[in-house]
Amino acid sequence: MYLFRKKITDLESEKDYSDILEEVEGGNITSVPEFYASTCHCGIRKWKDDLTVIYTPLDTTTSAVFTTNKFRAACVKIDKDQLRRNRNIKALVINSGISNACTGAEGYKNALETIDAASEYLDISKKNVLISSTGRIGVQLPMDKIRHGIRLCSENLSRDGGKHAARAILTIDRRPKEMAVEIKEPAHGVHIGGIAKGSVMVEPNMATTLAFLSTNIRINARLLDSLLKETVSKTFNCLTTDGCQSTNDMIAIMANGQSGIDVSADSKMLKSFKTALFYVLDSLAKKVAEDAEGATKIIEIKVVNARSTQNAKDIGKKVANSLLFKTAMYGQDLNWGRIAAAIGSDGSDVDQHKVDLYFGDELIMQKGMAYDFDLDKTSHMMRESFLSFKIDMNSGKQSARILTNDITYDYIKINAEYKKQR
Amino acid sequence: MYLFRKKITDLESEKDYSDILEEVEGGNITSVPEFYASTCHCGIRKWKDDLTVIYTPLDTTTSAVFTTNKFRAACVKIDKDQLRRNRNIKALVINSGISNACTGAEGYKNALETIDAASEYLDISKKNVLISSTGRIGVQLPMDKIRHGIRLCSENLSRDGGKHAARAILTIDRRPKEMAVEIKEPAHGVHIGGIAKGSVMVEPNMATTLAFLSTNIRINARLLDSLLKETVSKTFNCLTTDGCQSTNDMIAIMANGQSGIDVSADSKMLKSFKTALFYVLDSLAKKVAEDAEGATKIIEIKVVNARSTQNAKDIGKKVANSLLFKTAMYGQDLNWGRIAAAIGSDGSDVDQHKVDLYFGDELIMQKGMAYDFDLDKTSHMMRESFLSFKIDMNSGKQSARILTNDITYDYIKINAEYKKQR
Repeated sequence: MYLFRKKITDLESEKDYSDILEEVEGGNITSVPEFYASTCHCGIRKWKDDLTVIYTPLDTTTSAVFTTNKFRAACVKIDKDQLRRNRNIKALVINSGISNACTGAEGYKNALETIDAASEYLDISKKNVLISSTGRIGVQLPMDKIRHGIRLCSENLSRDGGKHAARAILTIDRRPKEMAVEIKEPAHGVHIGGIAKGSVMVEPNMATTLAFLSTNIRINARLLDSLLKETVSKTFNCLTTDGCQSTNDMIAIMANGQSGIDVSADSKMLKSFKTALFYVLDSLAKKVAEDAEGATKIIEIKVVNARSTQNAKDIGKKVANSLLFKTAMYGQDLNWGRIAAAIGSDGSDVDQHKVDLYFGDELIMQKGMAYDFDLDKTSHMMRESFLSFKIDMNSGKQSARILTNDITYDYIKINAEYKKQR
Repeated sequence: MYLFRKKITDLESEKDYSDILEEVEGGNITSVPEFYASTCHCGIRKWKDDLTVIYTPLDTTTSAVFTTNKFRAACVKIDKDQLRRNRNIKALVINSGISNACTGAEGYKNALETIDAASEYLDISKKNVLISSTGRIGVQLPMDKIRHGIRLCSENLSRDGGKHAARAILTIDRRPKEMAVEIKEPAHGVHIGGIAKGSVMVEPNMATTLAFLSTNIRINARLLDSLLKETVSKTFNCLTTDGCQSTNDMIAIMANGQSGIDVSADSKMLKSFKTALFYVLDSLAKKVAEDAEGATKIIEIKVVNARSTQNAKDIGKKVANSLLFKTAMYGQDLNWGRIAAAIGSDGSDVDQHKVDLYFGDELIMQKGMAYDFDLDKTSHMMRESFLSFKIDMNSGKQSARILTNDITYDYIKINAEYKKQR
């Protein structure tokens, strides 16, 4: 199903999680007990479902992270207000096709009306609803269609709806991104499921793209917040496709407590839950990387022995976002000078005479200087669809891993001709 | 001769400089009296001249600015040391094809030997020589060829050599960049000439690309430093083609005093000289923008009424470096939401509800919200080869202008296939 079959290694451990958790085949956000979903074609998009309702009848603890973009959409502002007042979210309403960003007071009113409609048709309080939008900026939501769509979805909620939701939240993605796991240790019965959307405007330093997760643990809001923040920082926030940041991105997790299992600060389950959450978010982030617009290669950039985790991330991101690097990768040209130039362009105090660069296991640059590597071998490696670079800063003990992709003719085509595709 | 004929306006004044200065037709670095140049094919590049010597027999005051990249080439480090000790530079030796970056101790020794050779063949002190390199990273200079080339150039210096120098310093540029002016007021006799190189790895916040200037004024080093720094910050440092920063960039100006005219802090000539220096650097920077790899459009982004000049520059650069924006421009799609998203991604405290956006004179977004603009008119404007956007932050009094270009299939082609072109 996926273009890139090679396993992307986890820098921290590269370990096997199979003793702790089990992947649910074809699993998604409704693989978790008491989560329901439904989608419909309300009429924003021409040819595909464009409205999604995700629902649990149980009380939840919900956490979310949002884009740091100052031009944030109405839904982002409203969701933040909703969560400030109440963490018991029972319904998520997501539309694709229109982002409801740069839409002023009317857009804000429409977002509130979306919540009203969900509250009415699902017969829950307004405070139990979050909303999310993705698509074109500066266009108002067609509220009649949205209201009608929410009514339709509310009447057709199903335990099987997750796979449709994974598709309805997409815009110009090529493939749905869905994933679910069940925890095996220290007890059975805890599930985490999720769906994600994104193949453009994917950049670190925020909650990038859309991702919605469900789980059936019992947990307090503060602990769930810190778990989500930490795992997002190592997964979605280490992913960059084109360095562009969106107005609408969010990642939310709803915990409905159905399992009756508590995850508290000092429990064994906490460790397993955190691992499983990392695994689900990491898998979804990789699926976003695999679906990057026009990409032919996934590129992993590990930065090790840096002064700080932030410094490692910054340097990895400088390389990952270098257009010259990304185009060289597409051209299968191991032009490592472009990597060196990108590392050196970081604002931090980089000592070029300490930096080693590896392509796979091959040493390419040693102490900032060209190393006489095996050209035949590396030329062969450059043809792979998964490329891994390691930058050893030899300046500290912290590390980070950034995922990115090459930039190709198709990226230009998709984005130059975006207008024609709507 | 140039693709983009429309005048790029100077945000600060948009004024006519013809009362102060006159452009010298076909002028360049040897249009200034007592400057000589010579080029040869020493053998680094396959088919074009790759070595240049620029020389004046007179004593000079010389200033230069350099890349801030931490992976700086040997020549950058050595030039900084040279200028720290002595400002009387009489010769510049420039090779294209090899950057002498990431070349370690051997590269450093080779750079010093280049200075030795220039000193020997030009019969000047080693301290009178600066060197510059541009090209592939991680490759050692062929010193026999370099030495032989310097000897050849030293024997063939000519007052007519500037036009050859403008070509020999190029790598994959399509066109030479050269310019000279003569000041008319308050006195005749002061000339400024220059040549530049660059069509890739062009990014603000440093001395970008290579540019070498000559003038025949008398000036002290401190004043020349401040004039160069200020004018570069408004010209070359407001130019970005792909957001990538190089290991080798420098801009140098040699003032040989031939005119006998002093430029001192309180002279009328200072104002004229500063204007002329701005004009020459701005013209060369525009020629770099016009030659950006694969570009079909030059894009001017004016940011006005920002809190600070730096803030205005940062926001303009966020837009200019947005891949989504650059590809939309290529696709002639006025996708202004991508501009809004780029503005919002700046780290500073942007208030979206204050921001207005103009395309040419057309209001597109008002107070952060979609404005009902004339689609027919703007569609027509999008077909032009010069596009101008104005972002009014309505938050302060400072402004900046960033120049950039679209990203096209040809950019990918040129950079993905760079290896094959060497």
